Amino acid sequence: MKATFMYGPGDVRVEEVERPTIVEPTDAVIKMLSTCVCGSDLWPYRGLEGEQTEPRRMGHEYVGVVEEIGSDVKTVKPGDVVVGSFCLSDGTCAVCEGGYPSRCMHGGFVGEAQAQYLRVPLADGTLVATPGEPTEEQLADLTAASDVLGTGWFAADEAQAGPGKTIVVVGDGAVGLSAVLAAKQLGASRIIAMSRHADRQALAREFGATDIVEERGEAGVAKIMEMTNGVGADGVVEAVGTQESMMQAISACRPGGYVGYVGVSHGVQLDGGQLFFSEVHLMGGPAPVRKYLPEFIDLIYKGEIHPGKVFTKTVDLDDIAEGYRAMDQREAIKVRVRP
Amino acid sequence: MKATFMYGPGDVRVEEVERPTIVEPTDAVIKMLSTCVCGSDLWPYRGLEGEQTEPRRMGHEYVGVVEEIGSDVKTVKPGDVVVGSFCLSDGTCAVCEGGYPSRCMHGGFVGEAQAQYLRVPLADGTLVATPGEPTEEQLADLTAASDVLGTGWFAADEAQAGPGKTIVVVGDGAVGLSAVLAAKQLGASRIIAMSRHADRQALAREFGATDIVEERGEAGVAKIMEMTNGVGADGVVEAVGTQESMMQAISACRPGGYVGYVGVSHGVQLDGGQLFFSEVHLMGGPAPVRKYLPEFIDLIYKGEIHPGKVFTKTVDLDDIAEGYRAMDQREAIKVRVRP
Repeated sequence: MKATFMYGPGDVRVEEVERPTIVEPTDAVIKMLSTCVCGSDLWPYRGLEGEQTEPRRMGHEYVGVVEEIGSDVKTVKPGDVVVGSFCLSDGTCAVCEGGYPSRCMHGGFVGEAQAQYLRVPLADGTLVATPGEPTEEQLADLTAASDVLGTGWFAADEAQAGPGKTIVVVGDGAVGLSAVLAAKQLGASRIIAMSRHADRQALAREFGATDIVEERGEAGVAKIMEMTNGVGADGVVEAVGTQESMMQAISACRPGGYVGYVGVSHGVQLDGGQLFFSEVHLMGGPAPVRKYLPEFIDLIYKGEIHPGKVFTKTVDLDDIAEGYRAMDQREAIKVRVRP
Repeated sequence: MKATFMYGPGDVRVEEVERPTIVEPTDAVIKMLSTCVCGSDLWPYRGLEGEQTEPRRMGHEYVGVVEEIGSDVKTVKPGDVVVGSFCLSDGTCAVCEGGYPSRCMHGGFVGEAQAQYLRVPLADGTLVATPGEPTEEQLADLTAASDVLGTGWFAADEAQAGPGKTIVVVGDGAVGLSAVLAAKQLGASRIIAMSRHADRQALAREFGATDIVEERGEAGVAKIMEMTNGVGADGVVEAVGTQESMMQAISACRPGGYVGYVGVSHGVQLDGGQLFFSEVHLMGGPAPVRKYLPEFIDLIYKGEIHPGKVFTKTVDLDDIAEGYRAMDQREAIKVRVRP
């Protein structure tokens, strides 16, 4: 089968590899229907994750048809169209039961999904079966649900988005835009998207943003303060992962407010004293996407949300290098890949 | 009147100064009944807050009798025995109404309470009248309520202490011990105090600790993990303010758990990546003591809590230097001061 490798910064290749097979009785093997390129894939693509010594398989977002299951798998069966999270989870440990399957005590990360087939360990706790064959639009929506929608939703959830609340979203990538959609679904009254790109601003508005702020850094914070009578936002989503975006998120939040951060932290250092006197609730990490998937599938099949709109470009697996390039160059918000 | 000055590390003096008078119509002037020395007063006493260029008035915990009020003050009157927070608050701004009077938009900090009289700005939003003349024991309890009880309670509250929860308390000073008392009142099922001092362990047990862990740092975290089946505590209170204590608190917390930190941060640096993958809720800062005061006063006058037991030594104002010394040398957990 075909699979994607990153050989080093800017060097993405598709090569033939063995098709995966069942290894553990809790495994499932799925035939990929749809996968995509993640903003986090761009960190190594841009050489921002340190020296890479050997080619590395890529991809952690996926929708597929179950081909084969291990003898212990009970909740999905061959022929089911399934979505899974980028985190593996058994669904039964104390941490999963506490609502954080992304930190399952026996879990791990998916890392080989930009391919034609994928072995999914802990299938019962990781995969969710859909009601049936998705349309092409639903397939895009489900692909987004596998990571970016869940990640944005988690951040909006931790930012306590809800009725009467003003929510700021820092970051206009697919995760930030998904957080806008989530904040809207969760009932936030005012959703301020911080974005300086026309195409992303348009999608943010379509997803539910009530305001757009183009300024960033201190100027951006000043603008949010001005818009909130000097108080700050009730909740802020951080969806970038840099020092500047994190400080922008914390500083734009009211005392006692909530910052949900999901940008994978790169070089961020938080000063304890500054954090102490900011006095905001801070929560982030790998999103527990799996716990939201049943609700996402329901909303998607009912046609109530269209998170797949973040995919502004689709390529065949053979052309995935072009997908990386387009995302890196910001020609596309997010790129979907047909296997 | 007599007032306390810190001239520099280890150099605390009592001197005569002018009695304060009403300056703003929202002020009250109180005659001090009881004040005390705070763990945070020890930072400058130990020379850990940088160069000090001139003598500085000290003290921010207080119980007093109202002597005089400004023309706008409505909720307290001369003769009332009152308690206030170390933070000034108007009680009416958006941040106060949101539950964070310690970050009042028009507030500030009290800093001259180790004296015979104190001017309290924003009296209506800062002070709370008690039902009447306190006994000596109640006076000690009320003095604790002014800061350490409220600070420990806030941390336990943010750590989501409640029925069924396992709460760890890092720090066995007066704030940590108060957090143990708070966790007990909030209904926590298991309260693990991290302490290596026999006198503090005894008070922790009296306040409601079910377990004591003497190990600290990585060994302390390993012990907590062992006690929680490898999951971590549901909530952790951090009541020290050092790098080690902060990392101990974060590392002892389960994924998705809650860390309430109230140790005033000194030199703490949090690595964004480490925090991301810890995936704990982090909240701290100056405690919104004022919002808890009515409940504290009620519990104290009913005799249901005795937070004043953290005062293991009492001195006259003239001897406050001895109080600082005893706390610095850990001969006393906390020192109360008779003005």
